[in-house]
Amino acid sequence: MTKTERHSASSGWFDGHMHILPVRVYYEDTDFSGVVYHAKYLHFLERGRSEFLRAADIRHQGMLKTAEPLVWVVRRMEIEYLKPARIDDEIEVRTTPNELSGARLRVGQGVWRKSEQLVKADVEACVITFDGKPRRIPDDLRARLGNFLKT
Amino acid sequence: MTKTERHSASSGWFDGHMHILPVRVYYEDTDFSGVVYHAKYLHFLERGRSEFLRAADIRHQGMLKTAEPLVWVVRRMEIEYLKPARIDDEIEVRTTPNELSGARLRVGQGVWRKSEQLVKADVEACVITFDGKPRRIPDDLRARLGNFLKT
Amino acid sequence: MTKTERHSASSGWFDGHMHILPVRVYYEDTDFSGVVYHAKYLHFLERGRSEFLRAADIRHQGMLKTAEPLVWVVRRMEIEYLKPARIDDEIEVRTTPNELSGARLRVGQGVWRKSEQLVKADVEACVITFDGKPRRIPDDLRARLGNFLKT
Amino acid sequence: MTKTERHSASSGWFDGHMHILPVRVYYEDTDFSGVVYHAKYLHFLERGRSEFLRAADIRHQGMLKTAEPLVWVVRRMEIEYLKPARIDDEIEVRTTPNELSGARLRVGQGVWRKSEQLVKADVEACVITFDGKPRRIPDDLRARLGNFLKT
Repeated sequence: MTKTERHSASSGWFDGHMHILPVRVYYEDTDFSGVVYHAKYLHFLERGRSEFLRAADIRHQGMLKTAEPLVWVVRRMEIEYLKPARIDDEIEVRTTPNELSGARLRVGQGVWRKSEQLVKADVEACVITFDGKPRRIPDDLRARLGNFLKT
Repeated sequence: MTKTERHSASSGWFDGHMHILPVRVYYEDTDFSGVVYHAKYLHFLERGRSEFLRAADIRHQGMLKTAEPLVWVVRRMEIEYLKPARIDDEIEVRTTPNELSGARLRVGQGVWRKSEQLVKADVEACVITFDGKPRRIPDDLRARLGNFLKT
Repeated sequence: MTKTERHSASSGWFDGHMHILPVRVYYEDTDFSGVVYHAKYLHFLERGRSEFLRAADIRHQGMLKTAEPLVWVVRRMEIEYLKPARIDDEIEVRTTPNELSGARLRVGQGVWRKSEQLVKADVEACVITFDGKPRRIPDDLRARLGNFLKT
Repeated sequence: MTKTERHSASSGWFDGHMHILPVRVYYEDTDFSGVVYHAKYLHFLERGRSEFLRAADIRHQGMLKTAEPLVWVVRRMEIEYLKPARIDDEIEVRTTPNELSGARLRVGQGVWRKSEQLVKADVEACVITFDGKPRRIPDDLRARLGNFLKT
């Protein structure tokens, strides 16, 4: 075989304020109905949010190494399933940060296959301690996130 | 070891119109934050709906063996995460059918640990063909589901 | 609806030295090929081991609350896939502890659907710290496990 | 935000006869012990095999569209867990086809984080019909796979 080019796992890219992460559909993502299992889109959306945070230089491992370790959790979500994805499909997770308050980050997310929208979601995330106590989003994280909001 | 009593996997029980399925939290359900991964609650909710359907004598395998094979899919969902569940916890999935129209079934669902509510969800499901075409819920299924609605 | 009887999630039972846990196959367990996704059997096997440990009065949460928190990890596994399970199937995970040394527990496991064996596995587990350092299985755990071995 | 460059999901590359797929570790992959859940490595390995097959121009969707639809299944696997991966880690799945007989494909696989090997696996896959009947690997697939074997 020829030697082909080495590269990293995709961390996605930006189109204006929208972060886009390409994702491939594998066996693990589908169910017996032949299409992607509905809960797996939440995995895809979480990958999109994690890569958006990475772009803002926010790492889960880093948040664990502070005086009070913190983790992001989803507080609420509305999700609409418009069309199904199938095995081998290449899809995109699109993430737009819409609102940042003291305690929560709200993002609009979508899953697309080329020009077709498959899933539409509105997600509210916040940070908690390992004991489950809610915390304000730390100032340095807020500053980094602020750069990615529309205004 | 002593021989202890043989039994089936739980299919849950009813308390009035509400179906209740007990679920144990395992390794697979948790993430590095120490609590249950947010998407796994959708698995638990789906198990609850499947057992509710089984109680109404509706089987996924049976729906595949008709002239036009059909499967249930989630059309939309609103979910609120109130408190986290942890490894070894025994929780309950509570499912109440709220509305049955020609094309969709709407259920209210919750995940509870004893008297604490952990998750609250509102779910709309419908049936589609293997090609992804929406179909009316077949009359025999509607009749069986009808018995479980409040009126 | 009638009120039917409340019960716990199944923790399985013993037939001699073999622990048996009944498991239902749900949407989440299947893939587009129509049968259970191969990696999901590892989830079922892990549930079987967790319930076997629970029967020996060993809890994951308890192991986290000691001076040096410990967790079980799989060190190696051989697995053979004989026949597929399908949606709605009720299957059994059968777990027999075969060997307990200072640092590892070896169990033979199988997944069965009535009298048909679907999967056969040989699993070696050990305990590590949260930093990933291997530790001897603590004496109190060893004592409790010892009761369940054949000799 | 600046507009950054569009790209596809990674399908990996070859280093001689070895196919390499980069994979990022997300929330969904970890468990409460702080590291990747042992069954998730089977997902990563499956992604590696799927991308290796894609490189050989073999698509799961294509195999469904023939006179007798076929799917790949794992027949047996030996897996050794050497070191754990953690959230945010970038790892590689390395897949080397070792043996192709009439009915099965045997691959050696590994999961690596830079120069550290985390997991080592030996996997036997074969093709079956939707009814679960074993079939010879079709000649056109065998021809395409043959190009990727060492001799």
